[in-house]
Amino acid sequence: MDGHTDSSWLGAPLEQLPTPALTLDLATLRGNAERMRERCRALGLRLRPHVKTHKTLEGAALATGGTRRGIVVSTLAEARFFAAGGFDDILYAFPVPRWRLAECSELAQRLQQFQVLVDSPQGLELLLQNPLPAGKRWLVWLKLDCGNGRAGIRPSDPEALALARAIAQGSPELVALVGVYAHCGNTYGCRDIPAIQAIARDTTAAVLEFVTALRQAGIACPQATIGSTPSCSHPVPEMSQLTEVHPGNYLFYDLQQTQLGSCRPEEVAIRVLTRVIGHYRHRGQLLLDCGWSGLSLHGRDQGPAGCAAIEGHPQLRPVSQLSVPLSQACATAAMHPVYFVHAAGKVVELWRPVRGW
Amino acid sequence: MDGHTDSSWLGAPLEQLPTPALTLDLATLRGNAERMRERCRALGLRLRPHVKTHKTLEGAALATGGTRRGIVVSTLAEARFFAAGGFDDILYAFPVPRWRLAECSELAQRLQQFQVLVDSPQGLELLLQNPLPAGKRWLVWLKLDCGNGRAGIRPSDPEALALARAIAQGSPELVALVGVYAHCGNTYGCRDIPAIQAIARDTTAAVLEFVTALRQAGIACPQATIGSTPSCSHPVPEMSQLTEVHPGNYLFYDLQQTQLGSCRPEEVAIRVLTRVIGHYRHRGQLLLDCGWSGLSLHGRDQGPAGCAAIEGHPQLRPVSQLSVPLSQACATAAMHPVYFVHAAGKVVELWRPVRGW
Repeated sequence: MDGHTDSSWLGAPLEQLPTPALTLDLATLRGNAERMRERCRALGLRLRPHVKTHKTLEGAALATGGTRRGIVVSTLAEARFFAAGGFDDILYAFPVPRWRLAECSELAQRLQQFQVLVDSPQGLELLLQNPLPAGKRWLVWLKLDCGNGRAGIRPSDPEALALARAIAQGSPELVALVGVYAHCGNTYGCRDIPAIQAIARDTTAAVLEFVTALRQAGIACPQATIGSTPSCSHPVPEMSQLTEVHPGNYLFYDLQQTQLGSCRPEEVAIRVLTRVIGHYRHRGQLLLDCGWSGLSLHGRDQGPAGCAAIEGHPQLRPVSQLSVPLSQACATAAMHPVYFVHAAGKVVELWRPVRGW
Repeated sequence: MDGHTDSSWLGAPLEQLPTPALTLDLATLRGNAERMRERCRALGLRLRPHVKTHKTLEGAALATGGTRRGIVVSTLAEARFFAAGGFDDILYAFPVPRWRLAECSELAQRLQQFQVLVDSPQGLELLLQNPLPAGKRWLVWLKLDCGNGRAGIRPSDPEALALARAIAQGSPELVALVGVYAHCGNTYGCRDIPAIQAIARDTTAAVLEFVTALRQAGIACPQATIGSTPSCSHPVPEMSQLTEVHPGNYLFYDLQQTQLGSCRPEEVAIRVLTRVIGHYRHRGQLLLDCGWSGLSLHGRDQGPAGCAAIEGHPQLRPVSQLSVPLSQACATAAMHPVYFVHAAGKVVELWRPVRGW
């Protein structure tokens, strides 16, 4: 019991695991991966799964259908981890920080395809000032902000087209424009599927309109991608005019996604196992061996269940910081050094995520 | 830059650290440790620091004034880590889970003083059914719930005195009553120091009244302790009648403690360093290389600053999930594999916390 990372747990029944334990149902993971791939096939879109929720080689292998090609990462720690694990065609979806350029350069030299985001003239200038060795160019996605309000240049910004032109045509021996990238994380603020689809439609339209304007201006822009699990779980037909999508959370799904309508409760692959270790009758409460450090507090202010629901006991509610499918799988996964993957009630794999930045 | 845990950062100026980086000001840590020790000396109380905020050998050495004796831990992972690091007199402040009894037994045999909590007849029964080898007894603190509403038996509960008697006198060759333990975590719901002190006074009175009742019933109860950083930062005179206190967060302090009045802003030792990597003029926002995974979301719904404040720039507010002293040091520390401890602007120590449960 000393180590959650001990592979001696392989083969153990779930009931014997140390708690709190993050568990993943393998059949559900496979079903989620397959349904998303099928959805993309039907739309003629490439699926480039985001790996930030699970941060594991095994999860990304499943999500790429075993090709290990074409993923999105959120940190350079992830980029190195997946590169070392045999992955390629990796998109680092974060405006390149100046102080980490050397790391990006190293990855670009090591991989066939290491792609970066640019959303400002300063970002492009940084790449131009630090060219890759001969035979390699910086592969750049222009990040668009189509209403999400985080990183990205607005497609309506007069500088956006000039920036795209500078990326595509400014120094073609040093930099290439791969495509345009928009993330519709604003779908997480929606209350139903029609509202999510309206955002997906607007984001797609804004991206495609921008690509058309580029084409009319003589700027080649081979790729266009949008992402977010809510929008990709119920894609709108217009999305078929993109080339890629990049959802990530869908491999696990969670309580928040269930409330958004992205999945059915039985499609949630993640659970945190906990044990009841006390009963306080006078206040009608159970004490569990799992608090915020096993769950995170994400989602605490959302929905009737808060940060977690107790499976099979809808009448029980987590209170204080004691509380289990998870409201926010990314945040919960970040608290665990190992994931116990199970099938037929037994542990069949141990997945160890990368951490840090 | 590949590894946050690389000791090559020793001696580096803070400005060169990889971001996000959790940093601790050594002089502030020492001052916080010394002031709490001085407060306890003045009251004639032993300070048994709780280590759950920092989870490091170095932090606990500082907090115990170098004795490495007398700490409180929240997990068995911590208990093993500190035992292996030369600590003893360790109190595991969590009702012993049945499935982890073997681990507790092992620690009790290894250490001179490994102490456990009991708050129910079932908890005591578990210990009695699993006696330690000859020469060792289970050292038990009876956990009281004096209004905190988590673990603990209420001192007003008719069963409380019977339970204390059973611990102290039921099988003295197997089990010993060390004392009574109450945690006044309900001080975190206060809005000012007088309200915190009222809870500290009530908790102390309830504990002492229970100890008096035990004495009158012929039950020896050598120790009595209460804890929480807010109550111990402004102790009331009545607390001098206890034998110990067990605050923990005070070594770092944080934004929440500042708002509670536990400390002055300059006593907060913890910061998360982050860099500005983008500027979005049209919405007046900066993009930082630190999101929830470097901060946690604890405190998001508290106070004007939410989960963090940007030092030196009170007019800046963290929005969305991007945001830096910290609202909740325990939660933020849990996100970082290493803490950069600095003095005179340079890294002088790297502290690596224990994780897991």
